[in-house]
Amino acid sequence: MKLGVRRTIEQPIRAYSRELVAEAIGTFTLVFAGTGAVMVNRLSDGAITHLGISFVFGAVVAALIYSLGHISGAHFNPAVTLAFWSSGFLRKDKVIPYILSQVLGAIAASTVLALSLGYVANLGATLPRDGNWQQSFILETVLTFILMLVIFGSGLDRRAPLGFAGIAIGLTVGLEAAFMGLMTGASMNPARSFGPAFVGWTWQHQWLYWVAPILGAQLAVWVYRYLSNGFSDLKR
Amino acid sequence: MKLGVRRTIEQPIRAYSRELVAEAIGTFTLVFAGTGAVMVNRLSDGAITHLGISFVFGAVVAALIYSLGHISGAHFNPAVTLAFWSSGFLRKDKVIPYILSQVLGAIAASTVLALSLGYVANLGATLPRDGNWQQSFILETVLTFILMLVIFGSGLDRRAPLGFAGIAIGLTVGLEAAFMGLMTGASMNPARSFGPAFVGWTWQHQWLYWVAPILGAQLAVWVYRYLSNGFSDLKR
Amino acid sequence: MKLGVRRTIEQPIRAYSRELVAEAIGTFTLVFAGTGAVMVNRLSDGAITHLGISFVFGAVVAALIYSLGHISGAHFNPAVTLAFWSSGFLRKDKVIPYILSQVLGAIAASTVLALSLGYVANLGATLPRDGNWQQSFILETVLTFILMLVIFGSGLDRRAPLGFAGIAIGLTVGLEAAFMGLMTGASMNPARSFGPAFVGWTWQHQWLYWVAPILGAQLAVWVYRYLSNGFSDLKR
Amino acid sequence: MKLGVRRTIEQPIRAYSRELVAEAIGTFTLVFAGTGAVMVNRLSDGAITHLGISFVFGAVVAALIYSLGHISGAHFNPAVTLAFWSSGFLRKDKVIPYILSQVLGAIAASTVLALSLGYVANLGATLPRDGNWQQSFILETVLTFILMLVIFGSGLDRRAPLGFAGIAIGLTVGLEAAFMGLMTGASMNPARSFGPAFVGWTWQHQWLYWVAPILGAQLAVWVYRYLSNGFSDLKR
Repeated sequence: MKLGVRRTIEQPIRAYSRELVAEAIGTFTLVFAGTGAVMVNRLSDGAITHLGISFVFGAVVAALIYSLGHISGAHFNPAVTLAFWSSGFLRKDKVIPYILSQVLGAIAASTVLALSLGYVANLGATLPRDGNWQQSFILETVLTFILMLVIFGSGLDRRAPLGFAGIAIGLTVGLEAAFMGLMTGASMNPARSFGPAFVGWTWQHQWLYWVAPILGAQLAVWVYRYLSNGFSDLKR
Repeated sequence: MKLGVRRTIEQPIRAYSRELVAEAIGTFTLVFAGTGAVMVNRLSDGAITHLGISFVFGAVVAALIYSLGHISGAHFNPAVTLAFWSSGFLRKDKVIPYILSQVLGAIAASTVLALSLGYVANLGATLPRDGNWQQSFILETVLTFILMLVIFGSGLDRRAPLGFAGIAIGLTVGLEAAFMGLMTGASMNPARSFGPAFVGWTWQHQWLYWVAPILGAQLAVWVYRYLSNGFSDLKR
Repeated sequence: MKLGVRRTIEQPIRAYSRELVAEAIGTFTLVFAGTGAVMVNRLSDGAITHLGISFVFGAVVAALIYSLGHISGAHFNPAVTLAFWSSGFLRKDKVIPYILSQVLGAIAASTVLALSLGYVANLGATLPRDGNWQQSFILETVLTFILMLVIFGSGLDRRAPLGFAGIAIGLTVGLEAAFMGLMTGASMNPARSFGPAFVGWTWQHQWLYWVAPILGAQLAVWVYRYLSNGFSDLKR
Repeated sequence: MKLGVRRTIEQPIRAYSRELVAEAIGTFTLVFAGTGAVMVNRLSDGAITHLGISFVFGAVVAALIYSLGHISGAHFNPAVTLAFWSSGFLRKDKVIPYILSQVLGAIAASTVLALSLGYVANLGATLPRDGNWQQSFILETVLTFILMLVIFGSGLDRRAPLGFAGIAIGLTVGLEAAFMGLMTGASMNPARSFGPAFVGWTWQHQWLYWVAPILGAQLAVWVYRYLSNGFSDLKR
């Protein structure tokens, strides 16, 4: 390990840019696989099945946490990034760059899918069932609350067994897609909803998939602060 | 860590109330996801499939064990709480508060589901197939015996590899839902059966889903006491 | 820990009988869940699906390894027990008692299923597709070779990461049931085939489900001895 | 441990040949299970389902990593072997022997399947949907990029939690088969595509399943070099 003056200065900057690249690639992969599954399911007359799509969403989150978690924290989700910030686990100046990287990754994924598969199934955009946005608002809030609670409990709490956060969080995304995907799209993630909306330019109910997940994740911050004695049981 | 007189007194009380909140939130999440899957499956003409519902039940249990296990022990089930007590792993005075928290969480979940999705599929209530309660009684007893045996073996026995209890117990709930859910509802959990019954006010065979799981779990206490040399191999 | 003369004498005998009880309960659970899934699938006109049955077989094996592996080694399978013996990992005098315990557990499971569900789907008996036993003989031999190779590699080799054997072996049983269950029944386990055959008294091709798994497992002993430098890399 | 002159000379040679045998057996098992699932699915009129086939591919990779990873590194894939070489994790002189072992294992698997099941479903050969090879070229490149990124991140980076690489990589193969298998065959692996092509002697688009995976894997080498500070965070 050669340490010099130039290196000690450049290192933090390089490490920071690596975090942003990891967030962009991770969100790209999440949206590419998840909404890709929705699109190919349509192209193949439902051969993947709803359970198959849910499996893809859950599995890709788990795989990415194990692959990139040690680089960027593996948020891939603006609602999660904001919850990390408001609970003191992400520096304030990183919030906007993280969210921009995630949004760029999601746009890239929807672009590759649109170019390779065509404009199918609204590029996997999320929409409330029967246009019932009040229902979807409540449900998306609860879904993201549960997701963020699992992230705190399994991923940040030092009392949880080491290494199992990827499994716990992947299972949560997969099961929430399985049981509520047909009602709300089970987004829980503004970037995942933004990619298909931007590339397909369909902005209906887009606000909902930003407000409800952010609200649900902040609710989890509030609850887990209580459960962990003011976050004093979490890793710093 | 600032320690003072007030803190050392308040700490145990706060820790205790955190356990109860964790049990309530965990049971809420379990019932919200599991019976929610049953309801949305009905609303979507079976698009989630029976296997999908089983996956949701198993996955949510695994995710919750990794997220809240270090706070409350992650029972979320009165039959499990009673088995922890009778095997000496839960203080007597905690039994009733734990069970009340679980029941409250389950009622809250069924209430949110009824308000957001309507009164569908009996709110996911458990019922014996063709009203054959004798059959369901035997099967629910065996199912809960197996579940509690896995909890002892993978979660409390110090000879088991660390951290895998969430996977083992989640798989057990998922597989038991998969292979017997169509016969008995595969409840194994009085709180999970109580929530939909209370909110939908349908009490048919409710007693069965209290007596059989409690009986099966106590049977596992008796068997695992033998297998672990009077529990001397378990963590204290 | 009170140690006395009587205890030091009784201890090994008690420990041994606990191993046999664990093997019986484990094989009971494996056959109860796995063949129960086959039977309930028939009763429900295929609602569990073939993939669901495969999931049940794989998941129950994984859960049981985490729950009982530290007590008996979690064989639940005469072909595995014989391979443990011929590779030097089980004392000669334990072989017959282990196999008898497994067979008794399997018979108990098929009995409970027959009494509670009736005589359905041949109690989940294994049969070669279209009576083509030559094909099934080859395939069952290869399937059990793969299973035993995974047991050696993930479960006994000290170079493998600790604790993941349950997942690896459960996945192997689940995937082999998924891809060959429709051709051969994907037994890989004489006890699992014996239980339904004995209780339903249908002995057709029973010999095959003893000879082929035992042959395949012994083949794996031979191959893994080479791969592990005469088993010198394995745990003793 | 008896150490002598002859042993110290023979040892490296024996260890090397064990690596090659492990690669051959691993690739045999991967192709036997994965393409076997495709073939039996055809024979059973789709009873395994597309999701079932994807599960088999993912599960067999996970199980093999836990079983043989400590012997050969568990590549089972020429594109992965080339990426290990170009990133400095495999000695140059091992590349060709590794790839030959993988190809031989794949040919053996397709041979056993052809002999036992007959010439069904092109022996599970991979083909672009509707002959659209440009689309498949892009998608296979992206799929293998993601796979190799997960291998680097979860399996070689020392900052990742120990032991979870098998789960992360298995999930990645399973999810990629689930969401893109219907478009491209989701090969990501020249050996897996070569086996059925050679035994069934159908060479259409075979070049694609060599060039695209190798390209995608090399792309991941380039990206992960950046993410890991010139591979300085990886295990050596």
